[in-house]
Amino acid sequence: MRIGVLTGGGDCPGLNAVIRAVVRTSEVRYGSTVVGFRDGWRGLLEDRKQRLRFDERVDQILDRGGTILGTARVNPTILREGLDTIKQTLDDNGIDVLIPIGGEGTLTAAHWLAESGVPGVGVPKTIDNDIACTDYTFGFNTALAIATEAIDRLHTTAESHQRVMLVEVMGRHAGWIALHAGLAGGAHLTIIPEQPFDVDEVCRMVKSRFQRGDSHFICVVAEGAAPMPESMTLREGGFDEFGHKRFTGVAQQLGAEIEKRIGKDVRTTVLGHVQRGGTPTAYDRVLATRFGIHAADAAHAGEHGKMVALDGTDVTLVALADAVDHLKTVPQDRYDEAAAFFG
Amino acid sequence: MRIGVLTGGGDCPGLNAVIRAVVRTSEVRYGSTVVGFRDGWRGLLEDRKQRLRFDERVDQILDRGGTILGTARVNPTILREGLDTIKQTLDDNGIDVLIPIGGEGTLTAAHWLAESGVPGVGVPKTIDNDIACTDYTFGFNTALAIATEAIDRLHTTAESHQRVMLVEVMGRHAGWIALHAGLAGGAHLTIIPEQPFDVDEVCRMVKSRFQRGDSHFICVVAEGAAPMPESMTLREGGFDEFGHKRFTGVAQQLGAEIEKRIGKDVRTTVLGHVQRGGTPTAYDRVLATRFGIHAADAAHAGEHGKMVALDGTDVTLVALADAVDHLKTVPQDRYDEAAAFFG
Amino acid sequence: MRIGVLTGGGDCPGLNAVIRAVVRTSEVRYGSTVVGFRDGWRGLLEDRKQRLRFDERVDQILDRGGTILGTARVNPTILREGLDTIKQTLDDNGIDVLIPIGGEGTLTAAHWLAESGVPGVGVPKTIDNDIACTDYTFGFNTALAIATEAIDRLHTTAESHQRVMLVEVMGRHAGWIALHAGLAGGAHLTIIPEQPFDVDEVCRMVKSRFQRGDSHFICVVAEGAAPMPESMTLREGGFDEFGHKRFTGVAQQLGAEIEKRIGKDVRTTVLGHVQRGGTPTAYDRVLATRFGIHAADAAHAGEHGKMVALDGTDVTLVALADAVDHLKTVPQDRYDEAAAFFG
Amino acid sequence: MRIGVLTGGGDCPGLNAVIRAVVRTSEVRYGSTVVGFRDGWRGLLEDRKQRLRFDERVDQILDRGGTILGTARVNPTILREGLDTIKQTLDDNGIDVLIPIGGEGTLTAAHWLAESGVPGVGVPKTIDNDIACTDYTFGFNTALAIATEAIDRLHTTAESHQRVMLVEVMGRHAGWIALHAGLAGGAHLTIIPEQPFDVDEVCRMVKSRFQRGDSHFICVVAEGAAPMPESMTLREGGFDEFGHKRFTGVAQQLGAEIEKRIGKDVRTTVLGHVQRGGTPTAYDRVLATRFGIHAADAAHAGEHGKMVALDGTDVTLVALADAVDHLKTVPQDRYDEAAAFFG
Repeated sequence: MRIGVLTGGGDCPGLNAVIRAVVRTSEVRYGSTVVGFRDGWRGLLEDRKQRLRFDERVDQILDRGGTILGTARVNPTILREGLDTIKQTLDDNGIDVLIPIGGEGTLTAAHWLAESGVPGVGVPKTIDNDIACTDYTFGFNTALAIATEAIDRLHTTAESHQRVMLVEVMGRHAGWIALHAGLAGGAHLTIIPEQPFDVDEVCRMVKSRFQRGDSHFICVVAEGAAPMPESMTLREGGFDEFGHKRFTGVAQQLGAEIEKRIGKDVRTTVLGHVQRGGTPTAYDRVLATRFGIHAADAAHAGEHGKMVALDGTDVTLVALADAVDHLKTVPQDRYDEAAAFFG
Repeated sequence: MRIGVLTGGGDCPGLNAVIRAVVRTSEVRYGSTVVGFRDGWRGLLEDRKQRLRFDERVDQILDRGGTILGTARVNPTILREGLDTIKQTLDDNGIDVLIPIGGEGTLTAAHWLAESGVPGVGVPKTIDNDIACTDYTFGFNTALAIATEAIDRLHTTAESHQRVMLVEVMGRHAGWIALHAGLAGGAHLTIIPEQPFDVDEVCRMVKSRFQRGDSHFICVVAEGAAPMPESMTLREGGFDEFGHKRFTGVAQQLGAEIEKRIGKDVRTTVLGHVQRGGTPTAYDRVLATRFGIHAADAAHAGEHGKMVALDGTDVTLVALADAVDHLKTVPQDRYDEAAAFFG
Repeated sequence: MRIGVLTGGGDCPGLNAVIRAVVRTSEVRYGSTVVGFRDGWRGLLEDRKQRLRFDERVDQILDRGGTILGTARVNPTILREGLDTIKQTLDDNGIDVLIPIGGEGTLTAAHWLAESGVPGVGVPKTIDNDIACTDYTFGFNTALAIATEAIDRLHTTAESHQRVMLVEVMGRHAGWIALHAGLAGGAHLTIIPEQPFDVDEVCRMVKSRFQRGDSHFICVVAEGAAPMPESMTLREGGFDEFGHKRFTGVAQQLGAEIEKRIGKDVRTTVLGHVQRGGTPTAYDRVLATRFGIHAADAAHAGEHGKMVALDGTDVTLVALADAVDHLKTVPQDRYDEAAAFFG
Repeated sequence: MRIGVLTGGGDCPGLNAVIRAVVRTSEVRYGSTVVGFRDGWRGLLEDRKQRLRFDERVDQILDRGGTILGTARVNPTILREGLDTIKQTLDDNGIDVLIPIGGEGTLTAAHWLAESGVPGVGVPKTIDNDIACTDYTFGFNTALAIATEAIDRLHTTAESHQRVMLVEVMGRHAGWIALHAGLAGGAHLTIIPEQPFDVDEVCRMVKSRFQRGDSHFICVVAEGAAPMPESMTLREGGFDEFGHKRFTGVAQQLGAEIEKRIGKDVRTTVLGHVQRGGTPTAYDRVLATRFGIHAADAAHAGEHGKMVALDGTDVTLVALADAVDHLKTVPQDRYDEAAAFFG
């Protein structure tokens, strides 16, 4: 068999581990050939690819962040219109099954392809952990580890200066990183997109904590968090590449607002891209490797139109249609767990 | 209510996070009082305890390894004979529910107590991840991270010197740490207690790898691994504190054997205690905190004779009787995943 | 003897290690008593203090960032006018020698006090490494380690997306962190305050690198970096607390300018406060501990008006007057070393 | 010019950074060609080499431990007898200057070559930091960081179990790693080769600490430490490859002795090879890179028979003859600094 593989969307620690496992499993277990397409779907639109073998170079990418295939975000409209070109490229290269590794956009495209008869097995990828039908995705654990280490560091500065410190972490539509990092980092408040915040309530919490004699206040804010409409007006940050309205700098705007309202020194840190790069944690390497093995197995077993997923400790297959149907957001009971430590 | 808490068995990153969450939840959510017993069951046998409040000190233990309550291993026979003393101490201190945090031994004692009418909710703890009825236990992820970082470091030395390197990790009865660390660290072979090894086969693998021109060979060995009887005689290391026959230094003995049989430079590293100390990973802090919250909730809900457990992303309750019934070992299909990368 | 100690200015990993060593050495080697003043010079202006003993709590601060004494920035004018109050507080508390641990501001105040007859031994502290007369100060090595790890992480994202990535690190007046992090992180350009940059030249470098087929461009920017006047107009960020004109967000402004001029995707990360918090590196713990031992020794030897300093591997004493006379900036030959890797 | 480069002796984090800097500087600053010889001096004895260019591969080795050239320990006698072969290989390859990167053995061979007229500039390399005439060598800081992190982890286990814990670190002839790791890790005793230890005195210290109510005792032991002859008989471990008598397992033997004499639970951890592998710290990457730049500069300036060295913050040149004349051991005053925290 000839297996095609590509990585789409934002980069993420563990992509290389998936690629490595797909190559290893396809080559050793099935004697198949693997072709990697460059820069996500663009590689298929422009027929740019490379043969992947399990040599020393591919063996060593296990612990490297990013993706040796390159990646790119592609506008869904362009993708939809390019489906025929993509199918042609797959044909020209004799690809029997495609394994696209990516987020919502990539998996949706994989779903379209599957519906139009192109065999494929998706591998879910998202730092934000918001893809449905899987307990976790690789990259999330690494982002969480980095965010938590940053919060650990901010505690000592906040204590020494008796400061309020806000830290903005990734999570545009779902607050999983913020939720976990807040729990792991001992935050006094965690603000997530699923729970609009009230600035008055935040200020009351901060004041009450300092009045009790505590020395500092650490608040984790997901980048997609938004205030209750009557609570504060967020300066909007225009639209993102797919036309969604985007708030920018919610943490910095909230920090300035707290400082203004309660006259307390506030500092804000925006973690940004360091959360998505670098060597994956052991957890993510294992998860990514297992996803790669199972995707290759499914590809060879003719299990198409599906996506590998984590269910407890098992790697299973779910329908792509279900996975791209909605985003997985933080439910109320999980937020309540974190809230037990607020204040 | 008055809640008693203790930590038993070997120490483990995350114990303090459980204690902190039990105190926080009991105090804030239920207005209860928490008493910590010192040095595991010994604290109950000798009535040594301390009142725990959610003050700055307890708040700050979230990221500290070990346990502020101290811990100790106690012989099961002594424990069984001491059950009446333990019950008396609980009575004397007006403890309504006991939350013992510990491994197989501690949970078995908790089970005995429950059977004799003492309300209790167990929290499973094991570096080795071998307690049944729960997907994972805290401490395991930290041990895995440390083992993987060590393997990462050994790769470059092995490559530079074209060496065989063995690394012994924890896992007396189950090979979970070895299995995961081998996958995450890119091991060329992983040896676990569940799969007796054949020295000839190991030597054949090593030789074949070097003959193919590869520069090094990394083998992860669980401390409880054992050779096939006809393959090699392991010098025995006497008996452990509970009378089980104990092999010591399996990695060092195997390393010496490989060196002798194939005349190749072999180096062995025994990671030892560094795997179980120090700050927990973010993953373990979250899991331990959630276990603590749910144990306190269960204690107040009258859910006794049970243990908190992880099922996918949910924290649930399982019967202690089921949890201590058998150890959770590595099944064949999980070992086969790792084996895809052997050689 | 009674020794007073305080920590002034911004917090810095290693402050606690100095405090611990001062307490240990004074107590054990000299049988002296140590009093810690709270929140920098404010503690002396308002007579807020605490007795410090080498107990378990003080022993354990070795690896904790921040300062258990608290710290605060104080306006130099207020300090100058408060010198008599400070002297009175020292008298009232029977302090024989004061050990102020801090940066340029704190050491200048210590120098004023020394000139007016108050015995004191300074301990230099600065993340930025810009205090004169000492090879290094503690905190710098930790900041460098954090910045370098961040750059390591940004590489893989930049490669995967073929991006230009800018990372802003600390260094208002001197580029030491940027210089070292650029060398350690394999930056393709490092911009420091000592070397005004030319935006055209920067754009030329970026374009030329991509034209050669390289996949990414990483540029480290010190927060105090400034463009050549004719090259680009930096929106000014007002004045800092001491009346110095302050540029804010130089990296973000430069990033936007590059994006505009060459039409290439640019991402900017501002590391911010994570650089100054958290556990100190081993190097900084050793340096801070040695500074503390030697400061206590000097205090008891009557070596006043001086500051401990690192000279090669020796800890020595230098005159405070010399140390506060000028800032230590990056000399041309050191910048040339880094420049060997530019482009 | 044609520059030859090789890495000899045990591997060490930073070797690749030196190679990268030598290649970059020689190529870009001088237009020279660099040839790398494989596996240390063996590459010169057997004429095995590769052309090194500053391509993406060489650029990316900055943060990789080990050495892409491979390394090997060679018996000095074989080296001495092979000098003519080595000179012949250098001639055959048209090498103008050789840059050997290595420890005492490699630098001694470089010295012999220099004396017989072969131009060369040495780069000192030792984990143990015991090469004379330089403040530090790269690799040492990384080993220190790893050892300190391990000690941090052992503290919490020791506290929880009220144990004595011994940790053996590298340092066969000099105790620099132990000295620094003991200071950085808050050890209660540090034992180094320069200071023979008295087991009775060690036991007295341990007992006295526990009698004072302290919860644990951490002791750092350099692998080359030795007891006073009358204090304890160390089982000898034979001879090393160069005929030096070698004690093995001093920490384990001392641990067993303490356990026997005072009846207290003792655990010993031998860090071993993890100390010398993996990614170098930022400090070591900077030092190694600077050594590489200056070695290439010296090679092109005709400064032969010398070695690059660190003097404060300057990289200088010293005579190879001086550098190999003696080992740099820990002086009494440095040990006294650490001793301030013993007990």
